[in-house]
Amino acid sequence: MHKKLFIPGPVEVSEDVLQKMATPMIGHRSKDASILQRSISDKMKKLMYTKEEILLSTSSGSGLMEGAIRSCTRKRAAVFSVGAFGNRWFEMAEANNVPADLFKSDLGEPTTAQMVDEVLATGKYDLVTITHNETSTGITNPIEEIAEVIKKYPEIVFCLDTVSSLGGVKIEVDKLGVDICITSTQKALGLPPGMAICSMSKKAVEAAKNVKFRGVYLDLLTLHKYIQKKDYQYPSTPSLSHMFALDYQLDKILEEGLDNRFARHEEMANIVRDWAKKNFELFCEEKYSSATLTTIKNTKEISVADLNKKLGERGYAISNGYGDLKEKTFRIGHMAETTVEEVKVLLAEIEDILGLK
Amino acid sequence: MHKKLFIPGPVEVSEDVLQKMATPMIGHRSKDASILQRSISDKMKKLMYTKEEILLSTSSGSGLMEGAIRSCTRKRAAVFSVGAFGNRWFEMAEANNVPADLFKSDLGEPTTAQMVDEVLATGKYDLVTITHNETSTGITNPIEEIAEVIKKYPEIVFCLDTVSSLGGVKIEVDKLGVDICITSTQKALGLPPGMAICSMSKKAVEAAKNVKFRGVYLDLLTLHKYIQKKDYQYPSTPSLSHMFALDYQLDKILEEGLDNRFARHEEMANIVRDWAKKNFELFCEEKYSSATLTTIKNTKEISVADLNKKLGERGYAISNGYGDLKEKTFRIGHMAETTVEEVKVLLAEIEDILGLK
Repeated sequence: MHKKLFIPGPVEVSEDVLQKMATPMIGHRSKDASILQRSISDKMKKLMYTKEEILLSTSSGSGLMEGAIRSCTRKRAAVFSVGAFGNRWFEMAEANNVPADLFKSDLGEPTTAQMVDEVLATGKYDLVTITHNETSTGITNPIEEIAEVIKKYPEIVFCLDTVSSLGGVKIEVDKLGVDICITSTQKALGLPPGMAICSMSKKAVEAAKNVKFRGVYLDLLTLHKYIQKKDYQYPSTPSLSHMFALDYQLDKILEEGLDNRFARHEEMANIVRDWAKKNFELFCEEKYSSATLTTIKNTKEISVADLNKKLGERGYAISNGYGDLKEKTFRIGHMAETTVEEVKVLLAEIEDILGLK
Repeated sequence: MHKKLFIPGPVEVSEDVLQKMATPMIGHRSKDASILQRSISDKMKKLMYTKEEILLSTSSGSGLMEGAIRSCTRKRAAVFSVGAFGNRWFEMAEANNVPADLFKSDLGEPTTAQMVDEVLATGKYDLVTITHNETSTGITNPIEEIAEVIKKYPEIVFCLDTVSSLGGVKIEVDKLGVDICITSTQKALGLPPGMAICSMSKKAVEAAKNVKFRGVYLDLLTLHKYIQKKDYQYPSTPSLSHMFALDYQLDKILEEGLDNRFARHEEMANIVRDWAKKNFELFCEEKYSSATLTTIKNTKEISVADLNKKLGERGYAISNGYGDLKEKTFRIGHMAETTVEEVKVLLAEIEDILGLK
């Protein structure tokens, strides 16, 4: 039996979008391939509120995160982390011999603008990575405040991980001054995993030109150059299936209306948060709690594995806590095409299984 | 109108295989995900004639080529090239600060066992890259002879690019002593682009353990470790759509029978070669001419672009020559699920357009 996914990615994908994954192949050096990539790019610019170039990568979001920190760090990167995916960015720097320092918040706490300001004031750094929405803990960082601080340091290339938020939350890339905004298909964009997407500012392009060993496949400058050189084509053979589906899904997202879409995500989040507060506790302060997934403290000491097994028998899946937070927390994803009604049904099923109310 | 693809990848994909790309999502940390990846791995071992581990990468073949040379070169890599994709392997080494030398054959000539022997006898190298089937020129290197020579040098990690041949030509990985055999989905395997696959020998694993900066996303050792640690799972979120389709298509390939499949490719190649010899000339010596694509010298000085445009109007696509060989050659792909009959129809269409016979 198929389980309806309320995990923080991959998400449930609409049947019509899945069907676009079955589109017959075209040559990746054809005019049609250029038209397809340019169409995706134009729509992604609207969704990201940016005029900068859009890069596609046949990889997971991790691929572009690694590409960004390796391609654009000339001096030293300041990596701010509020969980597993922030830490991963630091591991990527280390594995690529990119000088970097890791600044971790206490578990459940956000990255603050003050932390960022203190670190950047040292003058040691020329690249910053911030997690917008940490998938492992469900924390959304106060990105507007952080962005204001980063603007004081014009030499900084500002990289933002929006893998589990973009498409569900308004992220105004140009207004925030984000140089590289990274996301991927299998979260709030509502597509199967397999493609990552980022914006790349002119400042980031210039930065990359001053980095010698950037690799090839994940190098952002290589992707950027190919768009210019080959009229919106990809240096190797891209996942055309994802491109067909992404192009189609972006139309659907724009048709729903961005403000409507963001409001729907906020409404789903509010319902899950209220339910969590009534029955358990929120893992982090409500003002930092994500609009796309909610991490819930397991204050009733239920067996999360057992709950998920029973949900599975009813055709639903949620997520256990990530890493050390396993069984101490559980996570409910509420993003992409999931509706308010579906969220209510899920919560009622959980109540029924746990004998709540 | 859809054009039937006779280009050297992406290839035409069967409707039932395309439909598998539309399979609903599952969690990538579920037991079902482990079962899926293990199933693919078991079947790929049969197709590669290997008992070594199989790694999947959500990337193009280039991603794993870069991963292989970066992950496993401790001392210095000897890169043998017979065209654009061989050269690309050298560019990847350079872009990753991996010490390497490039050994190019003259245009249209293969890499010979003697060349490899002379280079390895210097004792300077611990990794060799060989192109089995060069997509840009349609040359198949004499891999048995080359493999025999490489066996004399037990310290060598032997990397083989079979991107445009595996699935259409018998490549006995263990018998040849190939340590990393790389392919991808969009050529003779008959799937959409977006996933790369390789075998990795124990020798290659040990080599990678002695390389410090291997990166993360394309690092072969990271992929290998995750299979052990997480029971055939992937370090980040893989393209599950490709995995569903690959698992299904491998069943179809094994049902056709490997020997039947290889014989069908040989038959298609013979038909195209005979036609080319009658009407034009083969680009390379017949004994080095590929079983999956044929490069034809444009001795009649036709406009290849014009021919392809007219073929397009009839619902077919072939490829112009690659890079500098544009208009000087043209390429016909005959691989994956293409049939002997379809090849004959294509050639008849070309004859009709060019007024041949």
